[in-house]
Amino acid sequence: IARRTWIHIEDWVYLTILGIVCAGMAVLLEYIISRLNQVHLLAYGEVDKIETGWRIPATYGVWVGYVVLLIMGSAACTKFIAPLASGSGFPEMKCVLRGTILKEYLTIRTMLGKFLGLTLSMSSGIPNGREGPLVHIFAAFAMQLSRLAAFTGIYSNESRCSEMLAAGAAVGVAATFSAPVGGVLLSIELTSVLFAVRNYWRCFYAATWAALVMLIVLPAINDPYLDIQPQYQTHFPTGKAFAAQELPLFALLGLFIGIISVLFIKFHRHLVLFLRRNWVCKKVFQANFFVYPLLVSAVVGSITYPELLGQFMAGKKKFLTTLIDFFAVCTWTDVDFGPICNSTITDNYNGLHHNVSIFVSLPVFIVVHFFLSIFCHTMPIPSGIIISSLGIGAATGRLMGEILAVINGGYVWSGSGIAQAIYPGVYAVAGSAAMVGSVTHTISTAVIMFEMTGQLVHLLPVLITVIVANTVCSFFEISIIDSIIKLRSLPYLPDLSSGSSVFHLITVGQFMVTPVHFIHKQST
Amino acid sequence: IARRTWIHIEDWVYLTILGIVCAGMAVLLEYIISRLNQVHLLAYGEVDKIETGWRIPATYGVWVGYVVLLIMGSAACTKFIAPLASGSGFPEMKCVLRGTILKEYLTIRTMLGKFLGLTLSMSSGIPNGREGPLVHIFAAFAMQLSRLAAFTGIYSNESRCSEMLAAGAAVGVAATFSAPVGGVLLSIELTSVLFAVRNYWRCFYAATWAALVMLIVLPAINDPYLDIQPQYQTHFPTGKAFAAQELPLFALLGLFIGIISVLFIKFHRHLVLFLRRNWVCKKVFQANFFVYPLLVSAVVGSITYPELLGQFMAGKKKFLTTLIDFFAVCTWTDVDFGPICNSTITDNYNGLHHNVSIFVSLPVFIVVHFFLSIFCHTMPIPSGIIISSLGIGAATGRLMGEILAVINGGYVWSGSGIAQAIYPGVYAVAGSAAMVGSVTHTISTAVIMFEMTGQLVHLLPVLITVIVANTVCSFFEISIIDSIIKLRSLPYLPDLSSGSSVFHLITVGQFMVTPVHFIHKQST
Repeated sequence: IARRTWIHIEDWVYLTILGIVCAGMAVLLEYIISRLNQVHLLAYGEVDKIETGWRIPATYGVWVGYVVLLIMGSAACTKFIAPLASGSGFPEMKCVLRGTILKEYLTIRTMLGKFLGLTLSMSSGIPNGREGPLVHIFAAFAMQLSRLAAFTGIYSNESRCSEMLAAGAAVGVAATFSAPVGGVLLSIELTSVLFAVRNYWRCFYAATWAALVMLIVLPAINDPYLDIQPQYQTHFPTGKAFAAQELPLFALLGLFIGIISVLFIKFHRHLVLFLRRNWVCKKVFQANFFVYPLLVSAVVGSITYPELLGQFMAGKKKFLTTLIDFFAVCTWTDVDFGPICNSTITDNYNGLHHNVSIFVSLPVFIVVHFFLSIFCHTMPIPSGIIISSLGIGAATGRLMGEILAVINGGYVWSGSGIAQAIYPGVYAVAGSAAMVGSVTHTISTAVIMFEMTGQLVHLLPVLITVIVANTVCSFFEISIIDSIIKLRSLPYLPDLSSGSSVFHLITVGQFMVTPVHFIHKQST
Repeated sequence: IARRTWIHIEDWVYLTILGIVCAGMAVLLEYIISRLNQVHLLAYGEVDKIETGWRIPATYGVWVGYVVLLIMGSAACTKFIAPLASGSGFPEMKCVLRGTILKEYLTIRTMLGKFLGLTLSMSSGIPNGREGPLVHIFAAFAMQLSRLAAFTGIYSNESRCSEMLAAGAAVGVAATFSAPVGGVLLSIELTSVLFAVRNYWRCFYAATWAALVMLIVLPAINDPYLDIQPQYQTHFPTGKAFAAQELPLFALLGLFIGIISVLFIKFHRHLVLFLRRNWVCKKVFQANFFVYPLLVSAVVGSITYPELLGQFMAGKKKFLTTLIDFFAVCTWTDVDFGPICNSTITDNYNGLHHNVSIFVSLPVFIVVHFFLSIFCHTMPIPSGIIISSLGIGAATGRLMGEILAVINGGYVWSGSGIAQAIYPGVYAVAGSAAMVGSVTHTISTAVIMFEMTGQLVHLLPVLITVIVANTVCSFFEISIIDSIIKLRSLPYLPDLSSGSSVFHLITVGQFMVTPVHFIHKQST
């Protein structure tokens, strides 16, 4: 009888442990990142007090040295602990959840190595995401958890085990964005072709436990950025965040974002192929594992160095915290109408002497991050591409919103003839959702955006931008996940044609000879 | 070449038309309901001015007569125009989308008959939902649209046609709740076993068009309840809507709601079986089509009559608008701490002379609506059960929240030792999501709730309540959709076991003889 009772509650116990432990890991990660980041800024601040000519080289050395050090540590993790820990995790999980067995991909060693490597790479402050690595780590944890004696029922059954891995992946996305609903949906979109709806609430159950733990533990850590609120809580006014006349402009933003996404995916592929084929690269990078990360991290560190290009793009801030600036309800430029941001935000983007226009610095931010994100993702360290593209999309949206605000004096005419403020922050939210959505060919990034910002007032602009960007990108390119799967030649059951209906029209006559000469006697 | 271009854009054109036309229908429905409801109140107000002893019978007659008239009209639609229009639509659509061909279920005649019948039944003000009927109507429209010459490519391919029907169903739910995201998710949960993720964004695309049209057209109609905001916009303070200590209470609410849902499904089934088997019912109701709706509508009209039980439950209001009262940020009772509602809300629930405690009237509301919803759903008219259960859940949540507020003087102690107000409205939102979720065994009602209220601050309480209620209900009962499918003996491919993992453990040895005597020579 005890055995039968256990069978009934086994799944629930398993999913509860999964949710709680994974959230604990996510909180730990967040905590270490935040502390190591403080160390970086403290050290920089100390050296910055030097008043001789040595100030510049010393600050530069500290700034870049710290970045290089952490990245080398991260690379060492993948080199010596877990070779499979490098990269995102979505492409591999997509293969695993479709039935491919990737040996050693979900071991304890890989899990720990990736966690350590991810902590170091994230702490360095380079444009890097953690959602893919977390999905990988949590799926590995789900796998290992199922091997415990108590859960042999799960481990021994292939389809059940796969459902639990999917739950682990869902918790991974949910914990990254503190978004239980959007996390589940995004992980379904990224890893499934046919989703078993009966598995839906297992994912929700685990993700809710994760969200619960993060809610209770995070405020206790007492970090200014971590609160009971969503991390990127916006404050757009209900019912007035956008006018119906602006909706075509959001579609236009979607078009731009879609084009950027196509370029993003193409450039990433060509860079990877170049590094693999070019004989110089072959000779230098492939022979010496650490040279490429050393080079890239030195370049990234130099670019974000607060007295060079970093002065235009909040170099001192953690990459992700810039999102709060982009989503701000105020406008960065001086317009006739609507709220204007104070200097605590704009000073991060107008240079050391606060005399550079944001219409210069924002394009610089976009272009620099476009290339940095891609280069960072080619390093052999645990890294994700979703959050990096989030930043690019947010900057693009903010730029477009600011241009519109300046052109039009800060307002649009709403239907009733009353002037209404343009909120460039709404464009930033829509742009970031659309960028992630189109790079990965998913829609549920819109839901994640709602959970991240804690608001739904921008529902329609976000959905429109995401759909247009997705349409544009999927017309020209496969998703970055599929692109990486192809680049890595992962064993992979090909997709059903995802967008086009053309394949519905293919008939057997188009690829067989007519007239038919032979027919098998068992054909009906 | 024109042909090949058309193939590429065919789906998009189709989905755009689908979204726009369906939203137009939803807006038209909303407009007629609102106008017919005004006529009802106007007529009642005129008769109410009589100052003789005839006032009571006259007002009663006008109130009940109007309800009976509209319900009889609605019943006439199903009797004479479209017999298949009766009931919800989800059970049948579930069968259709799983491949069953239900002849005549998606014809123009059924579509128009159901639309007319739904308009009349909704306008009568009985506790009745429109999401199921709208799903049916829009799927029928999707089917008819695909039969146009331009879209033969869609009509002629079974799997493609089925994807388009799913999009129609998604638009139906999305248009009911003005919730494009939750609508798509709920329609997936309600109608799919294995969902093709590639169809995901077709649904979103169509639902976004629908939301767009409703956004632009609804304010133009200038109804006080229709605005660019979500229809049930709440205003809970960000980050303070609930304390972590309240979360177990939400789980308790989930438990209550789960039990109510089980009773709801059981009572509905037994009522239907009773009406079918009892010889009196057989003789009276089955022989005379109009007697049952006449009887039920007269009873419902009498109960909502504003001078009888209606005085405790906002009898004069449209059923759905009471949700705004339940979700209000203030408390209905006089507590020491936190905002208190003014009499414009509480006067609807404390009787004609404003001297009845809401702790009497709310339980009355819950019990009465429990039975009314079920009786209304057994009438042969287009009717839905989701929105009715929404009201029951909201009232239960509000009741529990008010009790807690009174017990505790209106506040909880938050972690930091600062007193924080209890918001019974949050309990109402969680209760309504949980009731709909557990009656239908779905999770995405939580997402719909976020879109309906335009807020995400109550994300965690809502998710917890929904999951607990779901767990309780699915342990004891199948969903109401599956229950109706069984009651109607619809042709139906049975579900994979939805909750339990026990079936994973069944081995061939348990139902075959051992030792094995024969094995087929082709077995590998």
